[in-house]
Amino acid sequence: MIHILFILCSLLTFSANAAVQDFCVADLKGPESPAGYSCKPAATVTVDDFMSSGVGSAGNTSNIIKAAVTPAFTEQFPGVNGLGISIARLDVAVGGVIPMHTHPGGSELLLVTQGFIQAGFISSANTVYVKTLKKGDIMLFPQGLLHFQVNAGGVTAVAYASFSSATPGLQILDFALFANDLPSKLVEATTFLDDATVKALKAVLGGTG
Amino acid sequence: MIHILFILCSLLTFSANAAVQDFCVADLKGPESPAGYSCKPAATVTVDDFMSSGVGSAGNTSNIIKAAVTPAFTEQFPGVNGLGISIARLDVAVGGVIPMHTHPGGSELLLVTQGFIQAGFISSANTVYVKTLKKGDIMLFPQGLLHFQVNAGGVTAVAYASFSSATPGLQILDFALFANDLPSKLVEATTFLDDATVKALKAVLGGTG
Amino acid sequence: MIHILFILCSLLTFSANAAVQDFCVADLKGPESPAGYSCKPAATVTVDDFMSSGVGSAGNTSNIIKAAVTPAFTEQFPGVNGLGISIARLDVAVGGVIPMHTHPGGSELLLVTQGFIQAGFISSANTVYVKTLKKGDIMLFPQGLLHFQVNAGGVTAVAYASFSSATPGLQILDFALFANDLPSKLVEATTFLDDATVKALKAVLGGTG
Amino acid sequence: MIHILFILCSLLTFSANAAVQDFCVADLKGPESPAGYSCKPAATVTVDDFMSSGVGSAGNTSNIIKAAVTPAFTEQFPGVNGLGISIARLDVAVGGVIPMHTHPGGSELLLVTQGFIQAGFISSANTVYVKTLKKGDIMLFPQGLLHFQVNAGGVTAVAYASFSSATPGLQILDFALFANDLPSKLVEATTFLDDATVKALKAVLGGTG
Amino acid sequence: MIHILFILCSLLTFSANAAVQDFCVADLKGPESPAGYSCKPAATVTVDDFMSSGVGSAGNTSNIIKAAVTPAFTEQFPGVNGLGISIARLDVAVGGVIPMHTHPGGSELLLVTQGFIQAGFISSANTVYVKTLKKGDIMLFPQGLLHFQVNAGGVTAVAYASFSSATPGLQILDFALFANDLPSKLVEATTFLDDATVKALKAVLGGTG
Amino acid sequence: MIHILFILCSLLTFSANAAVQDFCVADLKGPESPAGYSCKPAATVTVDDFMSSGVGSAGNTSNIIKAAVTPAFTEQFPGVNGLGISIARLDVAVGGVIPMHTHPGGSELLLVTQGFIQAGFISSANTVYVKTLKKGDIMLFPQGLLHFQVNAGGVTAVAYASFSSATPGLQILDFALFANDLPSKLVEATTFLDDATVKALKAVLGGTG
Repeated sequence: MIHILFILCSLLTFSANAAVQDFCVADLKGPESPAGYSCKPAATVTVDDFMSSGVGSAGNTSNIIKAAVTPAFTEQFPGVNGLGISIARLDVAVGGVIPMHTHPGGSELLLVTQGFIQAGFISSANTVYVKTLKKGDIMLFPQGLLHFQVNAGGVTAVAYASFSSATPGLQILDFALFANDLPSKLVEATTFLDDATVKALKAVLGGTG
Repeated sequence: MIHILFILCSLLTFSANAAVQDFCVADLKGPESPAGYSCKPAATVTVDDFMSSGVGSAGNTSNIIKAAVTPAFTEQFPGVNGLGISIARLDVAVGGVIPMHTHPGGSELLLVTQGFIQAGFISSANTVYVKTLKKGDIMLFPQGLLHFQVNAGGVTAVAYASFSSATPGLQILDFALFANDLPSKLVEATTFLDDATVKALKAVLGGTG
Repeated sequence: MIHILFILCSLLTFSANAAVQDFCVADLKGPESPAGYSCKPAATVTVDDFMSSGVGSAGNTSNIIKAAVTPAFTEQFPGVNGLGISIARLDVAVGGVIPMHTHPGGSELLLVTQGFIQAGFISSANTVYVKTLKKGDIMLFPQGLLHFQVNAGGVTAVAYASFSSATPGLQILDFALFANDLPSKLVEATTFLDDATVKALKAVLGGTG
Repeated sequence: MIHILFILCSLLTFSANAAVQDFCVADLKGPESPAGYSCKPAATVTVDDFMSSGVGSAGNTSNIIKAAVTPAFTEQFPGVNGLGISIARLDVAVGGVIPMHTHPGGSELLLVTQGFIQAGFISSANTVYVKTLKKGDIMLFPQGLLHFQVNAGGVTAVAYASFSSATPGLQILDFALFANDLPSKLVEATTFLDDATVKALKAVLGGTG
Repeated sequence: MIHILFILCSLLTFSANAAVQDFCVADLKGPESPAGYSCKPAATVTVDDFMSSGVGSAGNTSNIIKAAVTPAFTEQFPGVNGLGISIARLDVAVGGVIPMHTHPGGSELLLVTQGFIQAGFISSANTVYVKTLKKGDIMLFPQGLLHFQVNAGGVTAVAYASFSSATPGLQILDFALFANDLPSKLVEATTFLDDATVKALKAVLGGTG
Repeated sequence: MIHILFILCSLLTFSANAAVQDFCVADLKGPESPAGYSCKPAATVTVDDFMSSGVGSAGNTSNIIKAAVTPAFTEQFPGVNGLGISIARLDVAVGGVIPMHTHPGGSELLLVTQGFIQAGFISSANTVYVKTLKKGDIMLFPQGLLHFQVNAGGVTAVAYASFSSATPGLQILDFALFANDLPSKLVEATTFLDDATVKALKAVLGGTG
């Protein structure tokens, strides 16, 4: 039997060498490529690189949108680097809303775990898909399309959004239009919103120009 | 202003024609390709193709493994076809277990929503990564690697597994070895299990040969 | 020498059989998969499937946005099916604008061939990248991000936008918000625009709700 | 124990439904997409779809190039459809040659199993990589680059070329230039070969124009 | 209203962290991976990384082929790194020609912006697709196939070639055969060209061996 | 003629700059990304990076499984880095076996070059595909599925396994279960093997816990 040990262990050595690409836990300080971050050396990887409690606690919804987003993307959860998956927690208090936004880099699958959420997206063909979801319901938002989530019940809603990318990105419409230095004139010309509306929202959101 | 309507609507027509590839809701009766099922005609797609309540109800755990898996893959949830994402619900009663298995086609991100689960995977380098997870914890299982989930508390555990594929597949080790017509002799030769063990498990699991 | 003919021709036969996947000209009436349309039979493919004059003529800019988009995506130019590339022509008259929009399915590389265009995009990090382009200049708009083009000179501008997808899609912000049946209340809740603004734009763009 | 059978078998049913995308054996009569052929119904798939003896026999090298190519691409070996791998057998008699060619759709890994082969490729940077290979040697030819194989010993050489695509394609330079109806004038203008050379080779290879 | 600012800005912070993979402007001095170059730090990226005037000027066609190619691939236009798109300008004077060549890494979509170009490609099935293009016409050349462009009018032709890759590569047939150290004997054996022809072209193009 | 030289050489310079992504020979000491290792500088690449004799010699089968695996993956053969292909040699002496295993990262195409091998795999649908192969036969094992190879004749068998990945990985079932520190209790709970069996195999294979 000692021989089995010997030979299988030599196979094992081979296996250890050849297996690095099972995963590539992100070294957030290393160089980044279009495929993701550099890999942490395999010898330093532990189970804690593959688990996280970060989405276990409610985000702070004591704010005007009465909502919070807690992501576990590559930056927060390096184990997903290069594996085409990630997750985020949504807390939406009564009256709260996740504003109209897109994820440029991936599709989203939303799972409601508490309360009620009215969610929707608009397709390139300009069809609107809206549904009110209860605990246990799931809804899909295809990559890159405008979508939103609104609390639709008398209690705080909690949901988890899974993504088909480790770095799906997030572009919130109001920030893109009103919370940066994009000149008001360009916003108006490209959205047909009037000057007063644009300037009012820029004032609120800290935009300039 | 009528002109805006006119011109934007002509753009809109263009948009409607060009946007079909936002999504491809599976026509489960149509031809299947390596990239997934054929697309349902866009005109017949409704919001119900993008939502599901299927993972909202507990699976039946009144069985010997005291656990149940409820998938929302392309077959059960056609909206994910071709979008590289899907989800499944796990119910694991006290003493229950999701047996050792792999997903040949995708990585898994597990979210515990109730109770406690001890979960783990083994890498190609033969390193074991095991952790006990509580509500709100997430854990990653890279594509194709053996992994398992075991109830680790005094209450039924519930978890949701997201996948980086609409059809991740599922290969349960015990079924692959003992629940089909793979000859016992081949099982024994390739696993080093003895004949009595193989035959006993084949008997339990309905395997032949 | 006759032998060369014989043997090379037998190789040629092999080649003819094995080469179908050089391209997959779309059969627009056939089934569509997540990877694109079905392929037209190779025997019926001609050079005209690979060329088009459709983007050679100016679009009609006699409209309120004073601009026109003429695409050569799979629907208009079936030869690009599955090949990850397509093109569209932009005509932007003096005072014209291509409104704020995204392409959910691909990155865009814009080439100005006449006049001047002020173009810009906003990143997920909410940084604004704006530049005024002259004839011969190119500008890149990464996948899924909001961007726009505005005539910036005293003459009609012409530009060609190449895409990293045969079906990049197009989502024009104003259409998504104001030209469909997305309820005003949801638009307002998710964009922070006021009711009067939303209803005014819905009236102009034909939106309901 | 009967309970294990019951519950595992219900899991098994789930597994059977969810597993279709393990593979997609080509239905060569069904519609083809950019991702490959349609899948044969799973119920009709047998082990013979996954094995082949086609590359086990020597090709006929009694011809002027003294060589033969026997492919096992999707058309000949439907089991590889969509799986990104295929193989071909090369027989190269003494004095034989596989003429300069490219595979537009995949990289090649050549394994010599008998005799000696001098093989080479030229990179985009115009560097030449040539080596004489003996039995057991492997050589890599990156996707799309011109390469060739020549018998380099006193015995018939046999080699197996694996590809990173189920449909790598094959473009043999001499066929592309001299064995079709590409007008001689265009061949000459684009290759700098003289008229006499082009016409002589067209005569031999059956080209017209 | 100050609260909106507060909470949205906290979302904004999240957004800034999560959005790095919108793009990956190449750091040409950093390590390169199979997916492209390392990313320039986001903080140092400016709009000038996404625009270029390099293809705005005519190339020098005062040479024997009377043509010039001016690329904007990753090396010249780092903004396209990893985004699957790039462009090049072709200037072809009267009597000029872009010699027979392939792009191993991507498909090409040619747009003629001035003059007339006769262009063509040959498929793996050895079918020839040739067309004479005028201003505004587009033509597609699938990945890896031999193709060419020839001036077909009495004026200098200008065209822009878009590619489905940021690094499509370029292999010019005459260079691959005659402008390096590939031994004449191997060129002759693998192309069936005679020794005099090969040596003459090697002399002109600077090839050795 | 000197002009041809001049101009073509300037094109050549362009070509040399643009062509780096033909290949990316692994720098095994450089940073690794999800797409593979960093590229060795092009100037230091030689033909020896693209060829190897490593799979030309028989592995040592004087061991209890009477078999050996000799891989040419990225680690052993850096030329395949990022190119989606690799190879391994199998030597299986009389009575020998390659134990039940999976490749998490790629499909396998097996070619028998000597002797007889009984090989098989089990699908997610739990169907068994087994076949006895002779010299020249090929068999396909789709990505991630359990499979095995057993000597089926009176002579040592030799086979070559090609993979659709440069780093397919390897997970040998017995190692994953019995040759590491995965606690026996967890092995038993997730495989239904009894304690005596698990402990006996752990003892043989060096497992702890």
